[in-house]
Amino acid sequence: MTRPLVDRLAIVGAGLIGSSIARAARENHLAGTIVVADRDPSVCGRVRALGFADDVTQSAREAAEGADIVILCVPVGATEAVAAEVGPALKPGAIISDVGSVKGAVLAALAPHVPAHAFLVPAHPVAGTEFSGPDAGFATLFENRWCIVTPPEGTDPAAVERIRMLWRAMGANVEVMSAEHHDLVLAITSHVPHLIAYNIVGTAAHLEETLTSEVIKFSAGGFRDFTRIAASDPTMWRDVFLTNREAVLEMLGRFTEDLSALQRAIRYGDGDALFDHFTRTRAIRRSIIEQGQETPAPDFGRRAVEKQKHEES
Amino acid sequence: MTRPLVDRLAIVGAGLIGSSIARAARENHLAGTIVVADRDPSVCGRVRALGFADDVTQSAREAAEGADIVILCVPVGATEAVAAEVGPALKPGAIISDVGSVKGAVLAALAPHVPAHAFLVPAHPVAGTEFSGPDAGFATLFENRWCIVTPPEGTDPAAVERIRMLWRAMGANVEVMSAEHHDLVLAITSHVPHLIAYNIVGTAAHLEETLTSEVIKFSAGGFRDFTRIAASDPTMWRDVFLTNREAVLEMLGRFTEDLSALQRAIRYGDGDALFDHFTRTRAIRRSIIEQGQETPAPDFGRRAVEKQKHEES
Repeated sequence: MTRPLVDRLAIVGAGLIGSSIARAARENHLAGTIVVADRDPSVCGRVRALGFADDVTQSAREAAEGADIVILCVPVGATEAVAAEVGPALKPGAIISDVGSVKGAVLAALAPHVPAHAFLVPAHPVAGTEFSGPDAGFATLFENRWCIVTPPEGTDPAAVERIRMLWRAMGANVEVMSAEHHDLVLAITSHVPHLIAYNIVGTAAHLEETLTSEVIKFSAGGFRDFTRIAASDPTMWRDVFLTNREAVLEMLGRFTEDLSALQRAIRYGDGDALFDHFTRTRAIRRSIIEQGQETPAPDFGRRAVEKQKHEES
Repeated sequence: MTRPLVDRLAIVGAGLIGSSIARAARENHLAGTIVVADRDPSVCGRVRALGFADDVTQSAREAAEGADIVILCVPVGATEAVAAEVGPALKPGAIISDVGSVKGAVLAALAPHVPAHAFLVPAHPVAGTEFSGPDAGFATLFENRWCIVTPPEGTDPAAVERIRMLWRAMGANVEVMSAEHHDLVLAITSHVPHLIAYNIVGTAAHLEETLTSEVIKFSAGGFRDFTRIAASDPTMWRDVFLTNREAVLEMLGRFTEDLSALQRAIRYGDGDALFDHFTRTRAIRRSIIEQGQETPAPDFGRRAVEKQKHEES
């Protein structure tokens, strides 16, 4: 039998991402021992029941002791506190990583707590669903998804390579870039889209009560797709917006400028401007499908799912 | 054998919706004869090849002659011209209907062309995908979807009932309301969401070229979902915004006010306001799932689709 990639893998935080890493590591035999820590005792209980960890503890420090790789899977806002607990427990040569959606703030929160004898290699798997908690995870979550690794300048290339190999082994494609660049790209691909989805669902909720119930009833026309995004974990997203403020505000500024232009075209009946804009956006969609980041199946394969539902009922 | 619901059913415009109606009518034996008209000869050729119509013609007038029910499935902006052509051909007792996403403007465009011996019963099936054209349609598109019927005041109840039965027979749930109310509800459930999706995809396209390519690459974080909506038919959507201007501008005004409040919370680091907002939006999502308008499967069943894709490749 070949030796696993990691002898002792510690995962701190057993939410959607942490529990998916544990499951992927177990299914692909990537670690000799998988230790999962979560400060919430009920989550620890679920992790034990689900059986994807060799060891479960409430103490992040205990999980990190003797670990070769420690991955923090907590909301970005909790990073510093957990790092302060975990840092002193890191053994020589250990690598500490994370999965946060914001990398500049995470780097700043983590760096002071990493001892000189350990390595810091932050990472962000661009994958997820709108569900949270240890039951929501699954081993194939990262398959054919990107994982962006953002090592600070001067990081030992061997440590970066180990994190890259771990994510490759879980099915992800790995890209290395600076934390600053990551935060700018993600602001437009993820953070602003989430904010907008949260916002329009909020606008619908503020309507007169009878109108809101009709919005729910007739949501299939587009609104429904936004509610899925707007059902994501509130703590995680609060922290994303608080910690990637500059890039989010910059991209949001561009978004509202562009929206004003479309609004103006509607007000003054400029059909050509609308048509041109709507035609150009189709090209972006094609590029995404061509790059294998989406299935071209209509409506996200909803037909397949609903057909199945019909057949089951 | 029981007699079909309609002797002669004429469908004008063989796009996604028109071709889906023809397929649904054929599959469920709802019409003695299905006639499809499309002014584009290449579309007529595809309709003949696909074989879901008994008769195919480029002339809307010819299709409408002798028809019991005529359904206009053209962009809202084309309604008036097609109505002027079809109106004089309507036989006594015929019903003319449509599938437009805006109902006030359609009613105004259609009404003057309907002779006194015929009935006008506009309708809007709230269903679709991001694809267009006769190849994109399928017979089950309307199953378990809403169809909103907006008869002008004083319409013969028997005519409304025939349109209701036709949509029921294609699997839709039918709701009757005024055109004005329809346009207000759809502005928030469909029109503004589409505008926002078109807008953010446009914002991404305006970024520096290298950044745009990265947005496409890392689109899985939320942006991708918007590109699907922003790939919808540009002509149809241009017409929607031009003809439902008042309601769209009203809802867009509320949306931008709310967005300013969230933007302000981000700028001033008001985490509680963000958390409260993000928590409330989850409730709307739950209501939609409870009302059977969505599957609770994570990520729209993308997992299932992708797994299948993996297995096929």
